[in-house]
Amino acid sequence: MSTVYLNGEYLPADEATISVNDRGFLLSDGIYEVTPAHDGRFFRLGHHLERFNRGLCELRIDLRMSREEIVEFHEKLMDDNDLRAAPLSMVYMQVTRGVAPRTHYFPPDPVPPTVYAFAKEVRRPDMDRWDQGFEAITVPDRRWTRCDIKSIALLPNVLAMQAAIDHGVTETVMVRDGIALEGAHSNFFVVFGDTVCTFPATNQVLHGITRGYVLELARELGFKVEERAVMVEELGHATEAFFSGTTTEVRPIVRIDGKTIGDGAVGPVSRRLYEAFRESIGQPI
Amino acid sequence: MSTVYLNGEYLPADEATISVNDRGFLLSDGIYEVTPAHDGRFFRLGHHLERFNRGLCELRIDLRMSREEIVEFHEKLMDDNDLRAAPLSMVYMQVTRGVAPRTHYFPPDPVPPTVYAFAKEVRRPDMDRWDQGFEAITVPDRRWTRCDIKSIALLPNVLAMQAAIDHGVTETVMVRDGIALEGAHSNFFVVFGDTVCTFPATNQVLHGITRGYVLELARELGFKVEERAVMVEELGHATEAFFSGTTTEVRPIVRIDGKTIGDGAVGPVSRRLYEAFRESIGQPI
Repeated sequence: MSTVYLNGEYLPADEATISVNDRGFLLSDGIYEVTPAHDGRFFRLGHHLERFNRGLCELRIDLRMSREEIVEFHEKLMDDNDLRAAPLSMVYMQVTRGVAPRTHYFPPDPVPPTVYAFAKEVRRPDMDRWDQGFEAITVPDRRWTRCDIKSIALLPNVLAMQAAIDHGVTETVMVRDGIALEGAHSNFFVVFGDTVCTFPATNQVLHGITRGYVLELARELGFKVEERAVMVEELGHATEAFFSGTTTEVRPIVRIDGKTIGDGAVGPVSRRLYEAFRESIGQPI
Repeated sequence: MSTVYLNGEYLPADEATISVNDRGFLLSDGIYEVTPAHDGRFFRLGHHLERFNRGLCELRIDLRMSREEIVEFHEKLMDDNDLRAAPLSMVYMQVTRGVAPRTHYFPPDPVPPTVYAFAKEVRRPDMDRWDQGFEAITVPDRRWTRCDIKSIALLPNVLAMQAAIDHGVTETVMVRDGIALEGAHSNFFVVFGDTVCTFPATNQVLHGITRGYVLELARELGFKVEERAVMVEELGHATEAFFSGTTTEVRPIVRIDGKTIGDGAVGPVSRRLYEAFRESIGQPI
């Protein structure tokens, strides 16, 4: 039984309960963050906490918790769940506006936010599997127009991801106005030769920490980088495509809607980026 | 302390808790319904249960509960909370996909859905207040594109409603592509002379039960009815505007974004509709 963190307490996961009046449960009124750890060490925790703080500001949730306290429960969850030796693990943290009688507007008398976190190991696909590449489908992007806020209002993402499962594929490319924007829980990249493209960090996509890191690596490796809209029609002449994410890392996509991307094999740009990523975290492939 | 219903049990509200792994709390993976009661008798419960069933189908939540069981806890919550004499009360019911380790896709091994419900009295505004009319602001409609599903992914509605509170007004008119679509938790109507307009029942708005009833009444009373897009610019020559909803009933709006609608007083069409509504439920004004 894993140990989780809830409002200052550490307790077994199956004993962690919240009120039915939690605004997270009734109104999806909260945000979350997922921070990865490699061999038990957090990666870019500062970036994740900064994004988390921006989300709290956007929703005007007054979390009276210092950065040190947040880092402390992150570290303790790693210890308590024996994750220091795991090659890849993560801490999930969620904050909601707290417990109050259900109203759409914020509680007139502020209540303490609910803080919940858990940690777990994440299994990467075997490199043999990775080498084969993965498959995706396109689905309409039905999400709200503040995808830059990492909110728990994830039902549209749930339905998009389930559509992928129903089709026996790994992920979905969410399409709005003909633009291949993002995965259900990862950013989407398209490669044309030595040019790496992904949608700009606007309100329409999550500003992925891994997305940012992949762009940094791409520039360092000498690839051209374009943050721009890629239309679905352009996928036909893309040479490579991949998703990025905290636990997804770099995941090459060789087929979308049954059509091969490039020559249908994992391409050199995706591979080079993943190698550079793994090297930078001290875990070469 | 009110009595609530949770997964087959009746218990005091402050003892009703759910797991932190409930998919309602983590992923807003669920739907809800609010059914009104007048003098303790449910109004159009069948319509509400039908919409609720459609929502369950859309989300593929397999609620193995008969209509009789659902009606039973609705009735019992009215009794247990002494609401039979209340002029206006409501039962809120929420079903989520249940408790499972967090994944975006549905749990591979299905789990029992979580069923939660509570009942409470709703206070109508005094008729003196109603007679003065209410005020609204417009806000961008940031919601997902399946607003016909009454999901608990309500964060966009929460933010819209809070914007109204921040501006000291009663409701918001959510605007997408220049169209005045809907309130944060009610349908929106605009009147031009003897013509009553509201947006058609598509994926862009909730198919309100009260919305449907108001349209029936409008036709019975001899008004013209147009289900069409009303542009924000048209509000300038509207003669009346109002919101409809389960607990909102018919709420006249005399000012939007500080600009008067019609002559700035509650108009005859809104008044006649509300009178007819109240008469039909045996509670004349």
